Amino acid sequence: MIRDSSSSTPSLGKDLLGLEPLSADQIRLVLDTAEPFKEVSERAIKKVPTLRGKTIVNLFYEASTRTRIAFEFAEKRLSADTVNIAVAGSSVEKGENLVDTARNLEAMRIDMVVIRHPASGAAAFLADRIPSNVINAGDGWHEHPTQGLLDLLTIRQHNSDFKNMTVAIVGDIQHSRVAMSASEALQTMGIGELRLVSPPALAPDSGRFPGARIVDNIADGLKDADVVMALRIQRERIGNLDGVPGIDEYFANYGVSHENMKFAKPDAIVMHPGPMNRGIEIEGSLADGPSSVITKQVTNGVAVRMAVLDRIGRIMSSR
Amino acid sequence: MIRDSSSSTPSLGKDLLGLEPLSADQIRLVLDTAEPFKEVSERAIKKVPTLRGKTIVNLFYEASTRTRIAFEFAEKRLSADTVNIAVAGSSVEKGENLVDTARNLEAMRIDMVVIRHPASGAAAFLADRIPSNVINAGDGWHEHPTQGLLDLLTIRQHNSDFKNMTVAIVGDIQHSRVAMSASEALQTMGIGELRLVSPPALAPDSGRFPGARIVDNIADGLKDADVVMALRIQRERIGNLDGVPGIDEYFANYGVSHENMKFAKPDAIVMHPGPMNRGIEIEGSLADGPSSVITKQVTNGVAVRMAVLDRIGRIMSSR
Amino acid sequence: MIRDSSSSTPSLGKDLLGLEPLSADQIRLVLDTAEPFKEVSERAIKKVPTLRGKTIVNLFYEASTRTRIAFEFAEKRLSADTVNIAVAGSSVEKGENLVDTARNLEAMRIDMVVIRHPASGAAAFLADRIPSNVINAGDGWHEHPTQGLLDLLTIRQHNSDFKNMTVAIVGDIQHSRVAMSASEALQTMGIGELRLVSPPALAPDSGRFPGARIVDNIADGLKDADVVMALRIQRERIGNLDGVPGIDEYFANYGVSHENMKFAKPDAIVMHPGPMNRGIEIEGSLADGPSSVITKQVTNGVAVRMAVLDRIGRIMSSR
Repeated sequence: MIRDSSSSTPSLGKDLLGLEPLSADQIRLVLDTAEPFKEVSERAIKKVPTLRGKTIVNLFYEASTRTRIAFEFAEKRLSADTVNIAVAGSSVEKGENLVDTARNLEAMRIDMVVIRHPASGAAAFLADRIPSNVINAGDGWHEHPTQGLLDLLTIRQHNSDFKNMTVAIVGDIQHSRVAMSASEALQTMGIGELRLVSPPALAPDSGRFPGARIVDNIADGLKDADVVMALRIQRERIGNLDGVPGIDEYFANYGVSHENMKFAKPDAIVMHPGPMNRGIEIEGSLADGPSSVITKQVTNGVAVRMAVLDRIGRIMSSR
Repeated sequence: MIRDSSSSTPSLGKDLLGLEPLSADQIRLVLDTAEPFKEVSERAIKKVPTLRGKTIVNLFYEASTRTRIAFEFAEKRLSADTVNIAVAGSSVEKGENLVDTARNLEAMRIDMVVIRHPASGAAAFLADRIPSNVINAGDGWHEHPTQGLLDLLTIRQHNSDFKNMTVAIVGDIQHSRVAMSASEALQTMGIGELRLVSPPALAPDSGRFPGARIVDNIADGLKDADVVMALRIQRERIGNLDGVPGIDEYFANYGVSHENMKFAKPDAIVMHPGPMNRGIEIEGSLADGPSSVITKQVTNGVAVRMAVLDRIGRIMSSR
Repeated sequence: MIRDSSSSTPSLGKDLLGLEPLSADQIRLVLDTAEPFKEVSERAIKKVPTLRGKTIVNLFYEASTRTRIAFEFAEKRLSADTVNIAVAGSSVEKGENLVDTARNLEAMRIDMVVIRHPASGAAAFLADRIPSNVINAGDGWHEHPTQGLLDLLTIRQHNSDFKNMTVAIVGDIQHSRVAMSASEALQTMGIGELRLVSPPALAPDSGRFPGARIVDNIADGLKDADVVMALRIQRERIGNLDGVPGIDEYFANYGVSHENMKFAKPDAIVMHPGPMNRGIEIEGSLADGPSSVITKQVTNGVAVRMAVLDRIGRIMSSR
């Protein structure tokens, strides 16, 4: 299950569109670069000159406060100049299409574009059309690679023995780019066992997650797991989507709770990509308790994005 | 009425949530720090390195162009890196709660948070949960401390003899955090007489403003006043709220107008926190005339915020 | 038709409100300044210290992603501190009027204001009331001077012999500030022939474009033209406004298409201010083809805005 390439000088390439094409060396490169960047955010003066004079656009076709500000602080701590473009629903309709937007950003000599878009493949579409570095900040149900990398960094800080590890991702797998990116990264790193736990109605289409075990029972799903990651579920799907139970039943059967965590290993960690629906997919006191690494994920999120921007920045500088 | 502490090395502490707990020394510290910062904004190069490498979030749950940009320019003139988060109504519902937002900001190692929120106590709630410095930019009907400080600085530039001064605040006292913060600061500085002038329907609940005189008559309220501060009234309250008269009657009886200013001292100054409803709570030509210090308030607003950020920044640096 | 002043040391003056009052020397000054600034955007470190410590507000009463980010990157590449104010429809109503906004910006000691507003004359109104430099980024149907300057720079890069040149501007002339600013600049530079081509219902009011030829026929309009500029038409006007044909007929009769470009000179260039309605006022494959200079316009847009900010900045510094 390892897709390790043996390239001697690993780099991220021009873009970061997903984790599927990355080798284990490339993933390790980002994680190893992220660790020292964590220290920058602990300093009194949180600033290094790495990207001084680079111009970056955060192009968000979907609202996302957390991801946007994590990128924005990563960019500013690297001394880049950043501009935010928030495309509201109405503006998309009256505005120009993504081809023309791409061409304009290129014409303005933007160095990097961080894009979030509701359509799967939008980041790749953009990357094909501009020489700027493109970083996917979430495209439809496809990938959210910096989330996958921060998840991996957080897991590695707890336990770096991926080969003997069991990770359970629990919730709305079918609609989750978070699950997809984490799965890609974990499998590339040679994860022992990856389980995707959900009600049958939210299970992934067959073949989307090769190598993962699809489980519809929380007891089997969490059994002896080292890592349990709860996914956010859209409230509007609860009790409305065919085969998805109401809140109480969902929480009892698929919630990451103290009760259900008894199936996992005693020292298992609890993760969540945020924002959380407490009492639906995760129990609030568990999210706030000692087994939770949820705030570590957020801290790692800034460092991982600094690492990605830095690694792409180096390639750019050597052009 | 003086609440002066006699601490020899005054500081603002970790947060600025309201003016009620501040001593006269602490208030003087901010005002005295603000004066030289005014000069920075007069320079060709409006920038000092005080907060270089600090990261600040302006977290606004209510729209406020003026307060937000005054803070943003104060932060940028101090060389900080700033990120704006504007939480629209819909995002609050689908988004995470303030506890989780606080935790995320902390996890991202934000140095300071400037928060405006419609709920009284929201700033304190946040400050209790994160080690970052929290500055209240208005919370419900509670306080708006930097407004109170800029009001005080503006008054002091006109007349520093607080003990022999009469200040009249006129308008919708009941719903005004501006009135509250100004009152706290003025009373701490030992103001001679503080009058709160409003129709009975907009008078404050008893006990909210100890030490102030509640007046429902503009002639009595402005009589021999040195300072007259008009408050913004929500247009939707005019003529609709029980006991609140229509526009013409409100302007005649409670408007700060040339006509009504005849009751005040001849050299009395006119203040308003903005944005103004000309012809309702204030007469336009008076706001634009020689007795008005309204634009001075805005200028002082940037300087006072630089002073607050600087004083909190010093504490932070010495941690 | 040349309005060249012969001042020996040309400058832009305090404000840039429109191109009508500018002399040929002043226009050449901006274009000649823009050329070296284009090179700054090609560097690895896209930053010069020209406006360090200056504070600039981008005050947008109309949404405009492209113009706003072109200004924002121009400002940041010149090292200025910038703040964006996006005034949504609802905020305008409850907010303060432009007089008070002007006064507040002045009170905050803003160096420059870039304003876009739906009312013709709004930029001049603001400029009359504040000592800050005001740059018009589009006011109603009046002017959009930086667009006119970038259009002129793009044309000059193709052909600098304005006196023997024919330029055709095609589309909704009546509602176009782009047409107005381009016309002013071209006529000041002594353009050989300027044609304004539109259906009669969208022709300009008589006298608005002195010196230009009003044409309602695409064959006559484009005949032997060196430059063809398509204007964006509001989709809601198509087929609804009295005398404006439906999409297919509009495209056939007034669209800038391969078919209609046969009337122009073989080496004629195609321009568009963006955002484009492909298949309505311009044919997509023509916009993307070798005769199109549309992305050059965008690149020149950043350089021209840097030149304008720089030239106004020099005046400011010498005050």
